[in-house]
Amino acid sequence: MLIAKVIGTVVSTQKEPALEGLRFMLCRPVNAKGEESGAVVVAADAVGAGLGEMILYATGSSARQTIATENRPVDAVIMAIVDQWEVEGETKYLKSEDS
Amino acid sequence: MLIAKVIGTVVSTQKEPALEGLRFMLCRPVNAKGEESGAVVVAADAVGAGLGEMILYATGSSARQTIATENRPVDAVIMAIVDQWEVEGETKYLKSEDS
Amino acid sequence: MLIAKVIGTVVSTQKEPALEGLRFMLCRPVNAKGEESGAVVVAADAVGAGLGEMILYATGSSARQTIATENRPVDAVIMAIVDQWEVEGETKYLKSEDS
Amino acid sequence: MLIAKVIGTVVSTQKEPALEGLRFMLCRPVNAKGEESGAVVVAADAVGAGLGEMILYATGSSARQTIATENRPVDAVIMAIVDQWEVEGETKYLKSEDS
Amino acid sequence: MLIAKVIGTVVSTQKEPALEGLRFMLCRPVNAKGEESGAVVVAADAVGAGLGEMILYATGSSARQTIATENRPVDAVIMAIVDQWEVEGETKYLKSEDS
Repeated sequence: MLIAKVIGTVVSTQKEPALEGLRFMLCRPVNAKGEESGAVVVAADAVGAGLGEMILYATGSSARQTIATENRPVDAVIMAIVDQWEVEGETKYLKSEDS
Repeated sequence: MLIAKVIGTVVSTQKEPALEGLRFMLCRPVNAKGEESGAVVVAADAVGAGLGEMILYATGSSARQTIATENRPVDAVIMAIVDQWEVEGETKYLKSEDS
Repeated sequence: MLIAKVIGTVVSTQKEPALEGLRFMLCRPVNAKGEESGAVVVAADAVGAGLGEMILYATGSSARQTIATENRPVDAVIMAIVDQWEVEGETKYLKSEDS
Repeated sequence: MLIAKVIGTVVSTQKEPALEGLRFMLCRPVNAKGEESGAVVVAADAVGAGLGEMILYATGSSARQTIATENRPVDAVIMAIVDQWEVEGETKYLKSEDS
Repeated sequence: MLIAKVIGTVVSTQKEPALEGLRFMLCRPVNAKGEESGAVVVAADAVGAGLGEMILYATGSSARQTIATENRPVDAVIMAIVDQWEVEGETKYLKSEDS
């Protein structure tokens, strides 16, 4: 998985029928310090992620192992919202109460 | 998934029989601003995408989860045509009426 | 899929038994203009591709969806020989009669 | 697989239910000399890996082939803790007794 | 698949039980001329590859299609030892008798 920040949303009406009802989020990967880094990806949302949140997304066939995405043509899914991460014992990110 | 722009088509007559009837589109990924970015990929079309449209494509085994591509040897599929995307509340792309 | 040019062949006698009879081709990806670009890959041949031809190859589990590669440990397969491609209505590649 | 060093942990409470009980580790790939190299990834832990240890992680559908990760939406798993590696007969890494 | 040179071995005792008995080889990809190129990967050995040999390795779910790796959490497998390869009719690599 990669840690990424949810930076936006993508809207599509003309799509494969199986995708009906899925939300597509624009996510930008971050580095260990939480700085945005790398190219944006679009991930289906399985956990109710919101704009500005740090999330984990899984890719490939693993992206179809959530209840929301089973058997659907998606190759990236947000499967967890990140509360906190530490590097060598030091907190690098802590979700704020109001985010 | 990645957002990409459909920039062309690829024609093949000598191919694996299971591919008969599929359209192959040349797609160039774009960044969050909609600028072309990165190397072109060839994706099978599951949704009737046209030249110049912004689309989402899925890769890997997920590319075989559409009605058009099931059990076929394709590793990238256009599974949605993009109407609009927003980054931090700002519209970065809006499909024009006549495209 | 990626478009690539077949530039060579790879010979192996000591290999997984299931690979017996498969041809392995050295392929170099090309860009939208047909210029060689990126690192070479070795793909199993499912369609009778020849040296110098432009082909499409699929990767991952999709590489096992051809008759030639089913259930075999290959992660890239040539599944189509390219006749022609166009970018924004302009022909960028057209297979010559004698190739 | 890639060799990586476990450099941290990621905590998530709001996540896909199937992920309950899995530990997520921040891992940084290393080169053949053991120097940190490349972007961090988050891998599920199947073997009880600890901070500072060198590990192997597997990605894609293979990441779901451990007892801990079967049928779960994870695309990277720590499936081995590295004791030692050699390059051309020379030991490049040897786990210390107290690590 | 990629062509790579076997440059070393990785030893692990604490690992997923299903991995028992597999050998892990450090492999460095090479370019079409046989020059080492790109980051090392660790691949399970399905064919009895030795130090210094040129091999083909397959990744992803295809890495589980050998007798040695079926249902095991490995994402890269050596499935062939390379005898020779040619680029545009010119031999670029020929295994020596004593290697």
